[in-house]
Amino acid sequence: MNLCVIGLGLIGGSLALDLKKRGFANHVFGVENNPENAAKALELGIVDDIVSLEMGCKLADLIVVATPVNIAAKILYGILELTDKQVVTDVCSTKHSLVKTAAFSLKRKNYVAAHPMAGTEHSGPEAAIYDLFDGKAAIICDGEQSSPEALATVKKMFEMLHMPITHMEAKSHDLHAAYVSHISHISSFALALTVLEKEKDEKSIFNMASGGFESTVRLAKSAASMWAPIFNQNKSNLIEVIDTYIDNMLDFRKYISENNTEALSQMMEEANKITEVLNQKKKAQTESLKLA
Amino acid sequence: MNLCVIGLGLIGGSLALDLKKRGFANHVFGVENNPENAAKALELGIVDDIVSLEMGCKLADLIVVATPVNIAAKILYGILELTDKQVVTDVCSTKHSLVKTAAFSLKRKNYVAAHPMAGTEHSGPEAAIYDLFDGKAAIICDGEQSSPEALATVKKMFEMLHMPITHMEAKSHDLHAAYVSHISHISSFALALTVLEKEKDEKSIFNMASGGFESTVRLAKSAASMWAPIFNQNKSNLIEVIDTYIDNMLDFRKYISENNTEALSQMMEEANKITEVLNQKKKAQTESLKLA
Repeated sequence: MNLCVIGLGLIGGSLALDLKKRGFANHVFGVENNPENAAKALELGIVDDIVSLEMGCKLADLIVVATPVNIAAKILYGILELTDKQVVTDVCSTKHSLVKTAAFSLKRKNYVAAHPMAGTEHSGPEAAIYDLFDGKAAIICDGEQSSPEALATVKKMFEMLHMPITHMEAKSHDLHAAYVSHISHISSFALALTVLEKEKDEKSIFNMASGGFESTVRLAKSAASMWAPIFNQNKSNLIEVIDTYIDNMLDFRKYISENNTEALSQMMEEANKITEVLNQKKKAQTESLKLA
Repeated sequence: MNLCVIGLGLIGGSLALDLKKRGFANHVFGVENNPENAAKALELGIVDDIVSLEMGCKLADLIVVATPVNIAAKILYGILELTDKQVVTDVCSTKHSLVKTAAFSLKRKNYVAAHPMAGTEHSGPEAAIYDLFDGKAAIICDGEQSSPEALATVKKMFEMLHMPITHMEAKSHDLHAAYVSHISHISSFALALTVLEKEKDEKSIFNMASGGFESTVRLAKSAASMWAPIFNQNKSNLIEVIDTYIDNMLDFRKYISENNTEALSQMMEEANKITEVLNQKKKAQTESLKLA
């Protein structure tokens, strides 16, 4: 089939690479506003052609919107209006605003709201890599509002990406994304800012930055252009989870200042339970890859 | 030489493995209060013998204290009293309390306060691995209070572990450790607690936990028995850095609630600067390994 990817960054680019290599897409049309990124994507063989949005939507069987979510919210309605039998999906990290926008279109059923939960801290077409999605979760939201044909196409796409699919309401997706994924990014950004603020002398960061620091701060390398719109779109959920996070930090502060080793240990032992959850997840992931 | 390692966990165990393999230690005596860990360390070949503290100190040329820092603070004075020409060092993550304790001993000069900045989120002798320290930083504190002979022995040890050495005052070490290393752990523990609290249903964590979450939350697997004493010993520095961290979280909260995309982007772009610092560090680390 003909694939059109709108936005040739890390996610759009990686998706194009895998779907072409695995034979799902015969031809990949790319739509990209940034001329440098467009040229780079062509050069790297991520897309076969760079075309206009209108041309891409016309020529493709499947259109994947892979722009930052604020852009996606702006262009989704227009894209749907351009479709006839074409299937439209997206890869954005918040879903509620998109399904609300799509609801205004008579072509709503051509759209499948989706979120493949994969990524790295890098961005742009140079960051696109093969096998990025293997074994990671793909979320489809409000699937009952999509046509069975559109759903089948997008499910097939995720199958080709080796992603187990979970169905969810868009509102619920955004809540849980805030609770797990988005707060990780904010806590990592806050850590980077804190360390840069406290350590005016980079040499001290050099001396003291262990692998643990590097792992915790990794997401702070992420692109502001992608994350600012996500944070804005998921405002109320994020504020709720930030408040819980700050409460936990304040508990640490309190027990440290009181030399309350017992309470500190209890908090850390409670936190240790995440190990078991992640181990179970890893096991499930390995199983799903064996089936792929 | 004969090496005695007191505390056969991740750090003590890994250190014993490398120093034996690399020919620095001919014989490794282990001191370990927990009988299961002692048996495990023997079984895994981490130590040649399990001995009492007194016997270990008597038979060894170099004694490495690798217990949690609260235990180290309790036993360090007694160990120094047992020494004649033996050199004593430690691997603890805070240094000020230890050098204060050591100052009471007439054998102070036999002691070299040190902190090899390496580790993983795992603990116990089973977590001990080869090559853990390669290319990581080793900090020696208040070295002018150690005899030249003791300093030379400990420097040689770090050389064998392929660790570039930095000299620092103990007080300054603890400040910078709080600013970079300890706050990473607290932010990761707080993240785990927040997610476990918000997501009563583990299935949502399964669906939403990407590689980014796993990386940011990794340190929350760390042992409470090690970290509670560190937090207590580094109280005033930690409270200061926690306050800065919470201020940054509150800024995120404010700008998200105000839909202030510009301010949010500015914060994230500022945080992105950590990329450059870490890249420089990586370069320096690679260089130092080439020299090793």
